[in-house]
Amino acid sequence: MKDMDFAVIDTQRKERTGYPEVVYCAGKTDEQALAIIACMREEKIPVLATKTEAPLAEQVQKRLPESEYDPVSKLLTVGCFRDRVEGLIAVVAAGTSDLPVAKEAVGTAEFLGSKVLLVTDVGIAGIHRLFDRLDDIRKARVVVVVAGMEGALAGVIAGLVSVPVIAVPTSVGYGATFGGLSALLGMLTSCSPGISVVNIDNGFGAGYQANLINLAGR
Amino acid sequence: MKDMDFAVIDTQRKERTGYPEVVYCAGKTDEQALAIIACMREEKIPVLATKTEAPLAEQVQKRLPESEYDPVSKLLTVGCFRDRVEGLIAVVAAGTSDLPVAKEAVGTAEFLGSKVLLVTDVGIAGIHRLFDRLDDIRKARVVVVVAGMEGALAGVIAGLVSVPVIAVPTSVGYGATFGGLSALLGMLTSCSPGISVVNIDNGFGAGYQANLINLAGR
Amino acid sequence: MKDMDFAVIDTQRKERTGYPEVVYCAGKTDEQALAIIACMREEKIPVLATKTEAPLAEQVQKRLPESEYDPVSKLLTVGCFRDRVEGLIAVVAAGTSDLPVAKEAVGTAEFLGSKVLLVTDVGIAGIHRLFDRLDDIRKARVVVVVAGMEGALAGVIAGLVSVPVIAVPTSVGYGATFGGLSALLGMLTSCSPGISVVNIDNGFGAGYQANLINLAGR
Amino acid sequence: MKDMDFAVIDTQRKERTGYPEVVYCAGKTDEQALAIIACMREEKIPVLATKTEAPLAEQVQKRLPESEYDPVSKLLTVGCFRDRVEGLIAVVAAGTSDLPVAKEAVGTAEFLGSKVLLVTDVGIAGIHRLFDRLDDIRKARVVVVVAGMEGALAGVIAGLVSVPVIAVPTSVGYGATFGGLSALLGMLTSCSPGISVVNIDNGFGAGYQANLINLAGR
Amino acid sequence: MKDMDFAVIDTQRKERTGYPEVVYCAGKTDEQALAIIACMREEKIPVLATKTEAPLAEQVQKRLPESEYDPVSKLLTVGCFRDRVEGLIAVVAAGTSDLPVAKEAVGTAEFLGSKVLLVTDVGIAGIHRLFDRLDDIRKARVVVVVAGMEGALAGVIAGLVSVPVIAVPTSVGYGATFGGLSALLGMLTSCSPGISVVNIDNGFGAGYQANLINLAGR
Amino acid sequence: MKDMDFAVIDTQRKERTGYPEVVYCAGKTDEQALAIIACMREEKIPVLATKTEAPLAEQVQKRLPESEYDPVSKLLTVGCFRDRVEGLIAVVAAGTSDLPVAKEAVGTAEFLGSKVLLVTDVGIAGIHRLFDRLDDIRKARVVVVVAGMEGALAGVIAGLVSVPVIAVPTSVGYGATFGGLSALLGMLTSCSPGISVVNIDNGFGAGYQANLINLAGR
Amino acid sequence: MKDMDFAVIDTQRKERTGYPEVVYCAGKTDEQALAIIACMREEKIPVLATKTEAPLAEQVQKRLPESEYDPVSKLLTVGCFRDRVEGLIAVVAAGTSDLPVAKEAVGTAEFLGSKVLLVTDVGIAGIHRLFDRLDDIRKARVVVVVAGMEGALAGVIAGLVSVPVIAVPTSVGYGATFGGLSALLGMLTSCSPGISVVNIDNGFGAGYQANLINLAGR
Amino acid sequence: MKDMDFAVIDTQRKERTGYPEVVYCAGKTDEQALAIIACMREEKIPVLATKTEAPLAEQVQKRLPESEYDPVSKLLTVGCFRDRVEGLIAVVAAGTSDLPVAKEAVGTAEFLGSKVLLVTDVGIAGIHRLFDRLDDIRKARVVVVVAGMEGALAGVIAGLVSVPVIAVPTSVGYGATFGGLSALLGMLTSCSPGISVVNIDNGFGAGYQANLINLAGR
Repeated sequence: MKDMDFAVIDTQRKERTGYPEVVYCAGKTDEQALAIIACMREEKIPVLATKTEAPLAEQVQKRLPESEYDPVSKLLTVGCFRDRVEGLIAVVAAGTSDLPVAKEAVGTAEFLGSKVLLVTDVGIAGIHRLFDRLDDIRKARVVVVVAGMEGALAGVIAGLVSVPVIAVPTSVGYGATFGGLSALLGMLTSCSPGISVVNIDNGFGAGYQANLINLAGR
Repeated sequence: MKDMDFAVIDTQRKERTGYPEVVYCAGKTDEQALAIIACMREEKIPVLATKTEAPLAEQVQKRLPESEYDPVSKLLTVGCFRDRVEGLIAVVAAGTSDLPVAKEAVGTAEFLGSKVLLVTDVGIAGIHRLFDRLDDIRKARVVVVVAGMEGALAGVIAGLVSVPVIAVPTSVGYGATFGGLSALLGMLTSCSPGISVVNIDNGFGAGYQANLINLAGR
Repeated sequence: MKDMDFAVIDTQRKERTGYPEVVYCAGKTDEQALAIIACMREEKIPVLATKTEAPLAEQVQKRLPESEYDPVSKLLTVGCFRDRVEGLIAVVAAGTSDLPVAKEAVGTAEFLGSKVLLVTDVGIAGIHRLFDRLDDIRKARVVVVVAGMEGALAGVIAGLVSVPVIAVPTSVGYGATFGGLSALLGMLTSCSPGISVVNIDNGFGAGYQANLINLAGR
Repeated sequence: MKDMDFAVIDTQRKERTGYPEVVYCAGKTDEQALAIIACMREEKIPVLATKTEAPLAEQVQKRLPESEYDPVSKLLTVGCFRDRVEGLIAVVAAGTSDLPVAKEAVGTAEFLGSKVLLVTDVGIAGIHRLFDRLDDIRKARVVVVVAGMEGALAGVIAGLVSVPVIAVPTSVGYGATFGGLSALLGMLTSCSPGISVVNIDNGFGAGYQANLINLAGR
Repeated sequence: MKDMDFAVIDTQRKERTGYPEVVYCAGKTDEQALAIIACMREEKIPVLATKTEAPLAEQVQKRLPESEYDPVSKLLTVGCFRDRVEGLIAVVAAGTSDLPVAKEAVGTAEFLGSKVLLVTDVGIAGIHRLFDRLDDIRKARVVVVVAGMEGALAGVIAGLVSVPVIAVPTSVGYGATFGGLSALLGMLTSCSPGISVVNIDNGFGAGYQANLINLAGR
Repeated sequence: MKDMDFAVIDTQRKERTGYPEVVYCAGKTDEQALAIIACMREEKIPVLATKTEAPLAEQVQKRLPESEYDPVSKLLTVGCFRDRVEGLIAVVAAGTSDLPVAKEAVGTAEFLGSKVLLVTDVGIAGIHRLFDRLDDIRKARVVVVVAGMEGALAGVIAGLVSVPVIAVPTSVGYGATFGGLSALLGMLTSCSPGISVVNIDNGFGAGYQANLINLAGR
Repeated sequence: MKDMDFAVIDTQRKERTGYPEVVYCAGKTDEQALAIIACMREEKIPVLATKTEAPLAEQVQKRLPESEYDPVSKLLTVGCFRDRVEGLIAVVAAGTSDLPVAKEAVGTAEFLGSKVLLVTDVGIAGIHRLFDRLDDIRKARVVVVVAGMEGALAGVIAGLVSVPVIAVPTSVGYGATFGGLSALLGMLTSCSPGISVVNIDNGFGAGYQANLINLAGR
Repeated sequence: MKDMDFAVIDTQRKERTGYPEVVYCAGKTDEQALAIIACMREEKIPVLATKTEAPLAEQVQKRLPESEYDPVSKLLTVGCFRDRVEGLIAVVAAGTSDLPVAKEAVGTAEFLGSKVLLVTDVGIAGIHRLFDRLDDIRKARVVVVVAGMEGALAGVIAGLVSVPVIAVPTSVGYGATFGGLSALLGMLTSCSPGISVVNIDNGFGAGYQANLINLAGR
């Protein structure tokens, strides 16, 4: 464990939970985030940083040219936690506006060692688009569904597959979506069993959980 | 207009809006409801009474043997407003628990002159059940969708038909349904256009609105 | 169906629901919106784009000079879906601040083929202004009511007309309007039957639904 | 001031605010309420007790035969605070179900010395019923409007009179009324000036405030 | 009545309610607000404009040099509705941060003809400051109380005076104030009778209502 | 598929999702529930019925003596879906009051074929009780955490294990638990990754999801 | 530590936190509560049981005649944790309806070893009643304030004393109190520093915390 | 008492509550804040100003070079209220993002005379970090716990110490944290006794209350 006054790096986290600590950049100053990342690299811990704004990513990339940054998902990675394993995760996004959250899920699961298939723009307003992709989705060991507004896609998919669905409500929409509340409540109360839900816009959490499930028992 | 101290019967409502006044029995004493119904019958106004509990219905039936009562929808009718017209309304209920509200919609629309097809238990958890009934549903000029929990059925159907969908959220469910809020928000924020929504558990309002649409332009 | 990685154009939507897909620009990058519009034009699909900010509209107009843009309603159209048909929709706005939403309803319904009458500034604080316009409003086959604050105008009008009312709550106001919640709840719980409600600020949805009703049975 | 262990009678309240203390019976045991009323009578203070259930009222009437009880408003009075003065309050109830709250307002204002006119069943679904009674309502120095559901009646009346309107939301209704929230928000956000609002179902508070206004400056 | 396409000036409002229309500038474009004000001046109607931002005020002052503007309350006036009458309103503000709302109440009531006393910074955290000013406050025929956070000042004052209290919750504060909700609920549920409440931050509404009460019966 | 007027048994559900349909008894009449169960037995489908009240269970047991009923979890089963497989689920309940929900999870997972370990009364107020049981919990492939009030146990456990955690908020508690909202929000926003959440009191959903994860890839 | 299948008695809690475990009876069956109490008595742990309904108390008193039960506060005690120490806690209740919660605070603090003064019916509607008791209240080392409705009493007292105030919102009231939410928000957002808040109706928690403060540093 | 038109300095507050008034800068103009601070210095009152933005701090420092400013906690102090006394407060922050609030608590308590230990980054996701610091934390007479998201750290610590815990929910997080609501509800409903809660992000209030407790009885 390394203490930096404002933060304590949990260097034994991998031993305890099987995974290294992840850096949540929102709410940290750039100085704090940079120091934490530097400290982790000294310990040879692979880095996954979430909610990383572009200016911070640029500073990291100057110091650590091997880092990689995706401005859509706002994920920054240095190194990789594990080689891609067997098993597939499908990440399904209802609409184009849900892509940033979906890509956060994809990037997180890939960093942690999963193979991921991204399927986009298959919302329930045109449900035949979903059926066209169903054979691909059914190849996965776990499905992440990312949707805003009424969040209904999660329940529809859970009724069509035989694997766990991790649902991610997004804050996409306006008015009575109330910042993602409509999708959150819809996903929690779905009449289809086989769904569990993470926080609004929490693509990271969904990718992490899907990876745990994908690797369960290995 | 007839004044009864606690209520004023709107005897000209039919002239103004095309439809007679409806008696909402919840929140009225049995004495008040009985007096209002008696007063309407004196004026030869056909009666539709909603949220009528069984003891009140029994009292009405003693005095007005021609009245009809359905304990599931809690609708009581005396006479009929209009003969069945051309045009069809489909009322689609997601689950068995949504039937009381769905039947309130059916009974209201039939009283007002519409032909109605009731389709039950086609929730999104097993969406193939919906597809089996789709040809029937597509014959309607307007579709009423009754669903609790996530209320997703409304959006799925609206993406499959070319007529207006009137969505009725129900208070079916527990926990994060919050008394119908989850279905209400889901239906309001659906990504499918062609949906408008009435109050939670308001089968009457949906049947009334569907009938207006069914008869539009006649 | 055309797949563009981030979006899949639903080219058969017209066959299925009678109407082409609409482009919701909020939450999409300008690049994504432009690509979708271009793709639809290649397929000869008339375009209706909502929530279009001015810079995006300018880019579209450079490439597609036949496009039209209204900065108040933020609607951009290219081509037109259908010639104006018989039948009239009345769009009634309670106050000046409700105009952007009202005009989104007007523009949507006109694009889809309806004739529309816009009536403005007839809120309940001076209800005689409404009565002055009532004869005009009564000519419509469906009435859209756009109102913020307490949203009471919808119930008042529904008690005065014999056609369906589509109510649009707006987020106009401050304090206990809570972003449109006060008008939304007021419209959902109105004691007048014949009202159904769309999402807060959803002028598009109201215009779409009103057009469906206007054209019902043709 | 008299101390009774569980309560302290504010015997000087009349000197300080011009009015004696009122007994709110809900949440008190019958024994506590009886003791407080007895104590007030010893001090020759006229009693107004609100939310009085029938069994308690019977016990009071046994001991104090001069007491009066109205089971609709649940008001119990012993003696009277002041002779009826000049000036008139109009209490307007939207529907039959709002009568218990409206009568609590009437009884409170009469006990405190005001003349009151009760106008019932003039909700906005049939607004002509309101216009028929408008000349009467306009004779009042202050108008109390009692309404549930969307609560729109308050705004309509405030646009038609030149005196203050005290609005009382009621918990009448179901679904998205959320126990009176819809009417409360509607009344608070009304676009008509000249309205102020009391708690949901608080007929007592409205009658008290209306009486203060009626007597202002005497 | 004058129709301007986006607005209809209610030129008979004074005849109907005793007061001219007020211009609510938020949600209107500067062009719309200027046109409305110009139209009212042509009809010789004195103007009270609320929520007027400084740039708009400057434009008005260029055209109508007799207009007056207060940047704290954001009130703009042209002319005056009535000479100051007998009777006094006390406007009491809990804290310095409540001053903009309090001054909106003061300016509104003065424009409409009332004399007003403003008392500031007498919140309940130091209640002796209130007692020092109580003799002054008791001279008023109606008291407006402006407070954020817990809004407790309204209940304390209502227990100390014999005239109506109009309570204005403000959105001052952070965290669990939830934009003024804490003060709003506190004022609505106060155990002191004699309080009625207007919308959050609605100094205008409070000043208007207080003026109505002050002038009641004249 | 078998149609019973009020319900349609999804006899192909097992082919589609790998699992048979489950009967949710709340909101159904006893007659409806009995008919559905009888119909499933005719098709040789093993039955899991949730939220089964005792009187209904007695009726089932009269007709189907091989049925089993647990009054704590309110689960009724007839037959068993699959033999117990390898792999272990740990169900951890924070307090004694959480047991009914925890046992619903246990019974569901066992019916579907999982081995389950139930660990009780290890809430965070005495966290050493959790550490005493940690070695047992770590043997599981997936952990279900059932907790009301602040729901913090889920986050604590997720920081200590390397497998997925399914969190079930319960409605245990009073006041600011708001029917399970406090635990629900706490679990959704936990700073520990590796948690996904089901509906309040939804022990069935948690057991179902945990079983899916336990069997993933077999 | 003693394990009873449904509960684990934390017999070392006193060593760890200085206080024994408390039995929260709501949500437990009578059998469970009785077994827990019996188990604690075997270990010679003094018992404080909260939210104990009368039938359970009777059963306990049969087995443990030395137990004491107060039906107002619903506290049951067997033995006593500590002799009364120096230092005084004042528990101040705003109204008669707040007494059950206030007495729960009194009984808890006395059980744990504090001397307690109970002051009743000093709500802000008649604030002079508070001033009459202020000298007594100021003798305390910590003040517990119990109030429903707007909860304003906490802020008023905190501005008048120099010791910590523990505020307990109660669910007393109706309408916009929303089950104690109004008092909770009011107390959390009070402008007086020196207040911290416990859960709605949580007299136990307030008494426990007040006792900790009273004994701090001994 | 000194009156400045917009504010009244409570110069006797120290006599009444033992502490001088604190300046809350949010919601005040810089001019108002400067005038209040200047006025307090004339009276030789030590100044603690909260929520002070940097530009205001610069202006104060120009006029009062002895003032001190911390940009993280946004506290500005001039002079000091009291020398550090015996007794220790522990302020424990769950994560790096909670530091600004935690430092506001630290600075407030130090200004008022307490010794404070700050412990950072010991959230429940890695609970062993907390155990490493537990011996230090246990030396305190009162513990302030600052945490966002689920706020679970407060309950965990309260189960491990024998002194009062003051919990501060923070608005750190996104989605279902709803601006700090998740942590607020979690802390209020914790199953550990010995916790009381201040407003979201109210580090000042927590530091103030902790200091009162630390000094209780001196």
